[in-house]
Amino acid sequence: MEILEKYKSIRLQTIAFCKHLQPEDYAIQVVSFASPAKWHLAHTTWFFETFILKNYSENYTEYDPNFNFLFNSYYNNVGDRILQTNRGNMSRPSTDHIFAYREFVDEKMLDFLKNNPTQDVLDLVLLGLNHEQQHQELLITDVKYMLGHNPLFPAYHKDVYLLKDRNQLQETIQIKEGIYEIGHQGDGFCYDNELGVHKVFIADFEINNFLVTNEDYIEFIEAGAYTDFNLWLDEGWSWINSQQINSPMYWHKIDGEWHYYTLSGLQKIDKNAILSHINYYEANAFAVWKGMRLPTEFEWEIAAQQMDWGKRWEWTNSAYLAYPNFVKENGAVGEYNGKFMSNKMVLRGASVATSKNHSRTTYRNFFHPSERWQFTGIRLVK
Amino acid sequence: MEILEKYKSIRLQTIAFCKHLQPEDYAIQVVSFASPAKWHLAHTTWFFETFILKNYSENYTEYDPNFNFLFNSYYNNVGDRILQTNRGNMSRPSTDHIFAYREFVDEKMLDFLKNNPTQDVLDLVLLGLNHEQQHQELLITDVKYMLGHNPLFPAYHKDVYLLKDRNQLQETIQIKEGIYEIGHQGDGFCYDNELGVHKVFIADFEINNFLVTNEDYIEFIEAGAYTDFNLWLDEGWSWINSQQINSPMYWHKIDGEWHYYTLSGLQKIDKNAILSHINYYEANAFAVWKGMRLPTEFEWEIAAQQMDWGKRWEWTNSAYLAYPNFVKENGAVGEYNGKFMSNKMVLRGASVATSKNHSRTTYRNFFHPSERWQFTGIRLVK
Amino acid sequence: MEILEKYKSIRLQTIAFCKHLQPEDYAIQVVSFASPAKWHLAHTTWFFETFILKNYSENYTEYDPNFNFLFNSYYNNVGDRILQTNRGNMSRPSTDHIFAYREFVDEKMLDFLKNNPTQDVLDLVLLGLNHEQQHQELLITDVKYMLGHNPLFPAYHKDVYLLKDRNQLQETIQIKEGIYEIGHQGDGFCYDNELGVHKVFIADFEINNFLVTNEDYIEFIEAGAYTDFNLWLDEGWSWINSQQINSPMYWHKIDGEWHYYTLSGLQKIDKNAILSHINYYEANAFAVWKGMRLPTEFEWEIAAQQMDWGKRWEWTNSAYLAYPNFVKENGAVGEYNGKFMSNKMVLRGASVATSKNHSRTTYRNFFHPSERWQFTGIRLVK
Amino acid sequence: MEILEKYKSIRLQTIAFCKHLQPEDYAIQVVSFASPAKWHLAHTTWFFETFILKNYSENYTEYDPNFNFLFNSYYNNVGDRILQTNRGNMSRPSTDHIFAYREFVDEKMLDFLKNNPTQDVLDLVLLGLNHEQQHQELLITDVKYMLGHNPLFPAYHKDVYLLKDRNQLQETIQIKEGIYEIGHQGDGFCYDNELGVHKVFIADFEINNFLVTNEDYIEFIEAGAYTDFNLWLDEGWSWINSQQINSPMYWHKIDGEWHYYTLSGLQKIDKNAILSHINYYEANAFAVWKGMRLPTEFEWEIAAQQMDWGKRWEWTNSAYLAYPNFVKENGAVGEYNGKFMSNKMVLRGASVATSKNHSRTTYRNFFHPSERWQFTGIRLVK
Repeated sequence: MEILEKYKSIRLQTIAFCKHLQPEDYAIQVVSFASPAKWHLAHTTWFFETFILKNYSENYTEYDPNFNFLFNSYYNNVGDRILQTNRGNMSRPSTDHIFAYREFVDEKMLDFLKNNPTQDVLDLVLLGLNHEQQHQELLITDVKYMLGHNPLFPAYHKDVYLLKDRNQLQETIQIKEGIYEIGHQGDGFCYDNELGVHKVFIADFEINNFLVTNEDYIEFIEAGAYTDFNLWLDEGWSWINSQQINSPMYWHKIDGEWHYYTLSGLQKIDKNAILSHINYYEANAFAVWKGMRLPTEFEWEIAAQQMDWGKRWEWTNSAYLAYPNFVKENGAVGEYNGKFMSNKMVLRGASVATSKNHSRTTYRNFFHPSERWQFTGIRLVK
Repeated sequence: MEILEKYKSIRLQTIAFCKHLQPEDYAIQVVSFASPAKWHLAHTTWFFETFILKNYSENYTEYDPNFNFLFNSYYNNVGDRILQTNRGNMSRPSTDHIFAYREFVDEKMLDFLKNNPTQDVLDLVLLGLNHEQQHQELLITDVKYMLGHNPLFPAYHKDVYLLKDRNQLQETIQIKEGIYEIGHQGDGFCYDNELGVHKVFIADFEINNFLVTNEDYIEFIEAGAYTDFNLWLDEGWSWINSQQINSPMYWHKIDGEWHYYTLSGLQKIDKNAILSHINYYEANAFAVWKGMRLPTEFEWEIAAQQMDWGKRWEWTNSAYLAYPNFVKENGAVGEYNGKFMSNKMVLRGASVATSKNHSRTTYRNFFHPSERWQFTGIRLVK
Repeated sequence: MEILEKYKSIRLQTIAFCKHLQPEDYAIQVVSFASPAKWHLAHTTWFFETFILKNYSENYTEYDPNFNFLFNSYYNNVGDRILQTNRGNMSRPSTDHIFAYREFVDEKMLDFLKNNPTQDVLDLVLLGLNHEQQHQELLITDVKYMLGHNPLFPAYHKDVYLLKDRNQLQETIQIKEGIYEIGHQGDGFCYDNELGVHKVFIADFEINNFLVTNEDYIEFIEAGAYTDFNLWLDEGWSWINSQQINSPMYWHKIDGEWHYYTLSGLQKIDKNAILSHINYYEANAFAVWKGMRLPTEFEWEIAAQQMDWGKRWEWTNSAYLAYPNFVKENGAVGEYNGKFMSNKMVLRGASVATSKNHSRTTYRNFFHPSERWQFTGIRLVK
Repeated sequence: MEILEKYKSIRLQTIAFCKHLQPEDYAIQVVSFASPAKWHLAHTTWFFETFILKNYSENYTEYDPNFNFLFNSYYNNVGDRILQTNRGNMSRPSTDHIFAYREFVDEKMLDFLKNNPTQDVLDLVLLGLNHEQQHQELLITDVKYMLGHNPLFPAYHKDVYLLKDRNQLQETIQIKEGIYEIGHQGDGFCYDNELGVHKVFIADFEINNFLVTNEDYIEFIEAGAYTDFNLWLDEGWSWINSQQINSPMYWHKIDGEWHYYTLSGLQKIDKNAILSHINYYEANAFAVWKGMRLPTEFEWEIAAQQMDWGKRWEWTNSAYLAYPNFVKENGAVGEYNGKFMSNKMVLRGASVATSKNHSRTTYRNFFHPSERWQFTGIRLVK
């Protein structure tokens, strides 16, 4: 049974990502937007317990009534919860206890899935699995943030080569003016924010079939970009000055040479590798400096069929807003995507940290323009 | 000579708006985003001195070298300046001194304009006059904010009827699917952000030829909207809870009845009047509650030819981003609009407080979705 | 009748201090701890209205019921009030209106005082007059703060010589070990916090009969004191670093030479003048650097009979706490002093800005150790 | 050799206090003032490494040069360090690694101590051991804070009876007016802030030979104390209102009955037990309500010979300031106590959590008046 295997494999994958963690690594929250590994493990489990088992599994008894308060992320429909900033203040339940919780829920879920649930419920299970995959990527980026901000720069594991990706090609792609269809089609899984196929008119454009590299970005830095206000959006310029920013996240100039923290520790920068960990302000300023621009999410989606993508989440020049025919679902599931549609920019693609089978050309990722702890990158358009 | 008359009349208009102010009203800054009247008077003058007289008027001697630091708003290309939050900390130069500064600059400007400046310079003068008109509206809304947050609720003037606007009609307008052109055309003045005519594809839509009224909004409040998280964007819901919001700005429930502060003082709400002083979060929540939505800025622009508009700045569902062919000008003038293109939503139309001859269907006003001290309103689309 | 004359003269003195102010100067609040001149004028008037007229004058009708909310400073027993930080947000009532309020209350007070009030009530009037004198000093220091933080450094009046005080003598005073009495004795006015005469044991000490000068302090600065953590209390060191402090308030190094803002404008520092505008952290660090210490408030009081004092509020090394027999009065008057007895240090003496007849050797002034906008100085002890 | 045994036993005691901790408990910092257990373990070790081994042990090689940055608490003389608020952001070095660090340093220290160090060095070792004992108490109170603010209220260990102390007696002690000597005398260990024996004059007073109980305090709460501003210092009243305080730390009213979190978990309050976890504002307000007062630190020290004490850190009415003959030592050791002499109140005694042999009648503990996570209590004086 496909769903059973899928469930088992994705749930195992989350645990696999944790194998290099030490006990204390699970517990700590260094910054409000990055959650402890322990919390990711529990929250993804809570998702299945709350949306599947408690609603559809007869005679199911909640594992622990306190967990709803501790492990609800942002679903107002499911009740109160601890503040996001407090996720790292809970040394208990311990990691062992949370692994036990996972086992308990997995056992119940597997039993449940064997009993032929309806398609509606299967759709929810599928949502839970995609949700878990999103948290796998967050778990990695949150761990990177924690270790990368430790003055010892400890490696997550010495053989992770996440950042060593290269562009395959140096060509550009031409797209012709016309009316195109945007949005997800077909039977495969997608989030609600991708639905509502609709037409857009697109003018001619030329898009790079490669991303900006570290070398390109070093040129930008060395041209004085971080001190030239004319390149920056007003908010970006404020951010640079209030935070004293002069390079991408994780970059350190040591003895005159650029280094960066990677999951394998602190290293000299690989100049040919694709740039990562820049925010929208930086992406936009780089494009301005180049006399080019970022693609809109529509241009990206149209070009994607012909494009080499999947190494970075690529900042687009589109705000994250509802598609014309967007329908928010009722209840908690409706809170999944729709309520975040303000002050975010769309990122398209997928990154080296994205779970397998968790990407497609219509996928709309979104972050506030100031965020850069994800594996983000820049593709340019003329 | 047309430009001379235009210059005189617009500059006089700014002073006319001040005639009901008392001396202390000119000096105070109640909140970071609202500037003292005194500052508006000086800054608009500084604009002409800095961009015209100092650059193009031979032998012009700066009025006071300190003024560049005091009255530059946000032009990095023109040098350092006091923090926006400190505009209200300067009791000197006094209002009288600033009026003298205005007279000095006006005299020099009128002399200058008599000497046939080139078209390029005239374009800059025109920009300065449009800039002054924008500040006229800000001056009114900033004064309203100051007086409306004074526990005495003093009237600006007892015969201002700014809020008593009614809808003329109750009809809707149908627009047919198709490719439309967006952006400013023709010889008239417009800002750089309106340029770059481009095509968009628009699906069929039906738009109200009237705005939401106070009565409509009272229904929304009384239906419990401010406590129903399912209606709100996540940021809106946080805003409501952290600021304890339960109504539009300036509304007060007194002895069970809704009142609002108007420029004529505290009054019972006129239920038939058009709603004002709501932010994007509120506008969007209201639309969700109605099962409708806000128009995009493109829909608005297309429908505008046939529409009754100009009473409120109408929130659209479009983020404020560059048009495809947007070209930022070099130098300080390039900072006018382009650098604010992040985390803002577009408002279309004009309001009761907008200066005459300062509106057009392609005008793109923009504010952060949380702002509501402007005369903002809601138009719905199906 | 003495009290009548006293009332008139002190009330007039407050207005005299305002004669150099321009209209906008009355309204502005630059920092939370410094109130607008307008507010001082109203609050001192409110004090008489609230504690005398409303309680003891038959048939008195409150001038305006809103004023209690606007002009109560910190008396919880008298009801709610605007936040201290909002005192500068009220452009209305206008200064003219407040002068009218003063006239109204003064007329009623003078009538009232003619009718032989009881001694208890006269004591309250006396408290009100001393209260007004305290606000006269605050009015001056608050105006200095406002003008001294204006980038134009406008003079309050060009002929104020407040800072040009010199030490008269260079001698020291020896005090012998013994038991001494501390606290106010006799019939004259004093605050409740000076009462409760009690004995203290004091060891031998030698106290300077002069204060630290600007020249002394420049030596301290040039010895690198602001970068030598060993001289500073921990809180002082944090303050220096978070606020980037490197000199007393109002000092500016211009072209290699120390200047300071005075009420007569920006001037070169007079090296022989007595130092002012340092906080407890600075006073203490200076003493440490000199290998000396600050006096306790008891040592100061004992030595005061023989001492040249009255030019600066002198930081002592005593925390502001209750004397052994301190009795807090009931009601609002009890809030005058007692409730501030935590996290403050005692300052003794009086300053160039202290009103005449408003000083005595038992007077206990108090401020948080970080404050320095008063005319504060340093006297050393061995 | 006495010092060897002492060293071993105190160092072991620290580890003994950790035996009930789970791995995640070591790593977390819930609030800036409470450090992770892991950090306490490392910092106390760093103290010996830094002040003894690196200075006096020949050929000693630093364990890890990064540790000085990570585990220096507040010694400016020893170099830069991470911010106190970041102590909980370091998942590495792991707890295991820190235990290894302890073993390494202990081994070196024991070798070193066998070689007859000079008395000066032995004094520093003694300081290090007293320092370690202070951190033992902090470790307990920090763990209590972390677990007591976890919504699950996990017990540290189910058989801890720390709070079940009772008063032995109900009598009062009379002390006669006179001159008394204050400060540490004799050869035993004491901190620098206890030195400088000096005379004080004390008037007659009567002091309770018992502390305030939970029952007493419940009466105070039920009399409406937390809503009666007349009982409170101004800063205390602000604290109550801004933090919405209505009871001691760890108290919760559940179904109309007072409970409190103890190290054994959440329990019904033992009314006869001695009150704990109140701050100076609360202690002072309670005294005011009783018509009594807190003792000064001198009264406490004089009465201590005859008194039942050692169950709570007792708030006194004395600010933490230097004794008349206080001499700050040079270098880092001089930073131990002296630099904290502002905005703190003295607490005398010892608590149930104080290590054995770590108390004496001259001991001056000190905290900011708002702190209450220590085991603090109230003794009253008339």
